[in-house]
Amino acid sequence: MLGRAGVVTVDEARGILDMGLHPLPLDVERLPITAALGRVLSSDVVTDRPLPEFPRSTMDGYAVKARDTFGASDNLPALVAVVGEVLMGEEATQPVDKGQALRISTGGMLPPGADAVVMLEQTSPAGDDAIEVYRPVAPGENVVQPGEDIKAGETLLTRGHRLRPQDLGALAGVGATEIDVFRRVRVAIINTGNEIVEAGSAPRLGQVRDINSYNLMGLIQSDGGVAVRVGIIRDEYESIRAALGSALKDADVVAITGGSSVGTRDLTARVISDMGGPGVLVHGVSVKPGKPVILGVASGKPVFGLPGHPVAVSVSYELFIRPVLMRLSGEIDPIGLAGIPPVRVVSAKMTRNYSSSQGREDHLRVAIERIDGELYARPILGKSGLITTLVRAHGTVVVPLSKIGLSKGETVEVRLFD
Amino acid sequence: MLGRAGVVTVDEARGILDMGLHPLPLDVERLPITAALGRVLSSDVVTDRPLPEFPRSTMDGYAVKARDTFGASDNLPALVAVVGEVLMGEEATQPVDKGQALRISTGGMLPPGADAVVMLEQTSPAGDDAIEVYRPVAPGENVVQPGEDIKAGETLLTRGHRLRPQDLGALAGVGATEIDVFRRVRVAIINTGNEIVEAGSAPRLGQVRDINSYNLMGLIQSDGGVAVRVGIIRDEYESIRAALGSALKDADVVAITGGSSVGTRDLTARVISDMGGPGVLVHGVSVKPGKPVILGVASGKPVFGLPGHPVAVSVSYELFIRPVLMRLSGEIDPIGLAGIPPVRVVSAKMTRNYSSSQGREDHLRVAIERIDGELYARPILGKSGLITTLVRAHGTVVVPLSKIGLSKGETVEVRLFD
Repeated sequence: MLGRAGVVTVDEARGILDMGLHPLPLDVERLPITAALGRVLSSDVVTDRPLPEFPRSTMDGYAVKARDTFGASDNLPALVAVVGEVLMGEEATQPVDKGQALRISTGGMLPPGADAVVMLEQTSPAGDDAIEVYRPVAPGENVVQPGEDIKAGETLLTRGHRLRPQDLGALAGVGATEIDVFRRVRVAIINTGNEIVEAGSAPRLGQVRDINSYNLMGLIQSDGGVAVRVGIIRDEYESIRAALGSALKDADVVAITGGSSVGTRDLTARVISDMGGPGVLVHGVSVKPGKPVILGVASGKPVFGLPGHPVAVSVSYELFIRPVLMRLSGEIDPIGLAGIPPVRVVSAKMTRNYSSSQGREDHLRVAIERIDGELYARPILGKSGLITTLVRAHGTVVVPLSKIGLSKGETVEVRLFD
Repeated sequence: MLGRAGVVTVDEARGILDMGLHPLPLDVERLPITAALGRVLSSDVVTDRPLPEFPRSTMDGYAVKARDTFGASDNLPALVAVVGEVLMGEEATQPVDKGQALRISTGGMLPPGADAVVMLEQTSPAGDDAIEVYRPVAPGENVVQPGEDIKAGETLLTRGHRLRPQDLGALAGVGATEIDVFRRVRVAIINTGNEIVEAGSAPRLGQVRDINSYNLMGLIQSDGGVAVRVGIIRDEYESIRAALGSALKDADVVAITGGSSVGTRDLTARVISDMGGPGVLVHGVSVKPGKPVILGVASGKPVFGLPGHPVAVSVSYELFIRPVLMRLSGEIDPIGLAGIPPVRVVSAKMTRNYSSSQGREDHLRVAIERIDGELYARPILGKSGLITTLVRAHGTVVVPLSKIGLSKGETVEVRLFD
């Protein structure tokens, strides 16, 4: 077991988990595009027909032979006979001959014989059945050619692409109203702790309601995963083992929360290791909060043992679970975007000094304030067991291992909660 | 009608719409917190009991009277008798007297008589029933006091707050498993155009499939709205009027897409104005693409006439519909976050020169590329009628009215599509 000898850095922990994880591809499901926003394509979408299938006007004006307008100017306009109109949504069958034009609207089909469109604004009527054209147009001007948007046989979107609104538009445009996507990643949440009771019940003295499951559920949902709450399990080897066993059957990822005490952490680690190799990969990471986090793989699936403090749950999620969800989702990150944080980042100035824990990457919660038009980051101090330190914050500042703190007035990058 | 005389700037158009719009508050619905992520609270959440309700240990160790440890050091440890253990999830009833300690785990209830917790690591056993303490603790050290997270009577979250994962955790923590939120904003999409056919059907020559409805639907969904597709309507006054009339009954916002031609635009404007004041507020904005956009209010509800070109639809949506959706959602933007773009922004260098249209705010699509670790923005050129220019892009660069272009190597801010 790697990392057992001592605590590892965040980057080391991520590397160890990444190397130890060999996920199988997710199942595929077929969805209407109206329900596919944010989902990841499981196969390339190749078009069989071009878009558009016919030349279309991009302007309101007149379909002409471009050469009939060559040399046209304000002083010497070209005179063209208007012989009819292209109706929207109809095949244009009436041809345009030399010296002729057909009225056409934006999106209309270019008629046979025409090779360009003169904008309405560059013409004026000359009697009932003719126009004067004041500017020359080049062949192809103000026309979208067949296949100019999408060619027949072109790969419109590739396997691993996460669908954005415009992608749905393009799929509709080629008639791909149903597509194959990977099913969502399922994350089971097991909550251990003899002091934890259901959020809907009234705790007695010594008991507290379950906070972590709901925070985690929200984090998983916002990343496009499906959160499956297994429930609150007693801090006993057999109970945790049974819960983990059934969670591994149903889910792709398991998060075991709670268990902040040394005894419980060891119990969680022991259960993970006993479920089949490779077991616990990392036990302890030099991060604050969240140091006692456990990263493991059981029955080929990633299993996380998260510290019980609510803030530690959020930090551990962002550092370790989110990247795994992204990897499992089947999404192939576009090359250029790799390394760009998955959340909004703003620059702000520290309102006060902050001393961080040396030898640990420190995740500081901050509230954003705007003073005289400038953004400031105000540290929200307080124990990592307090959920309200997260509620009052707008984002996080990461103080790297190598730094011992932040100075008042220093510019920091705040990763916003979205 | 404002803006009729001529085209207005983007900021002017937004101001005119903002002033002309007086939306009624949305209805309220009650939801379980498991279904409330991203929803907006319609009333404050005030807690009736403190969290926690009893003092809790934040460490594994021993509950003691702090004064019994004063002066303790490696050379002169304090000797304390261990008289029992606090069980997790149980009320701690056994008191700690002078010179005594109870074993306690993280999250355990501080017993009567104790006022601090000594960390396990700062003790060592001294026989079977005693420990030596090597560091003094102050009263309250390693303890969360009753109400330290949330006080009784405190406003945990306020009306207008959009719920994030940690907020769900906090709500669970105080037993608020159901909460009141504003219902989602409903946006009706009407697609006009005699050349448009359903995405699922086979277009004949002269016809194209509906792209804009699906792009718009995705944009609305990603902003938390409900998109209601009315369908494809013929470009005739009575048809558009009937569709708009029924859409205004059902939806909070109406978007009429298509109608790029002058005739159709005028038809859409006329229908909007005939539905009851104030009608069309803006007809034409100095933006590229999207200049012919119509902003109106009919029967008290915002109505948008969007140009038919797919890229113009996206730009108009981001500039005008998204801010209206945010306003109607009931969300009250936290003061400090006002003005931060609602999407991710990255800096990148232009790969080439770009001349923009003078006198218009230009929204340029770009692909992001990473070359030698640096980010570059490559303009995706092409007519705004081509949906694939949006598909191939990762984001948008806005060239303001006052600039005539961008230079190769210039650093620009790219607003990413998310």
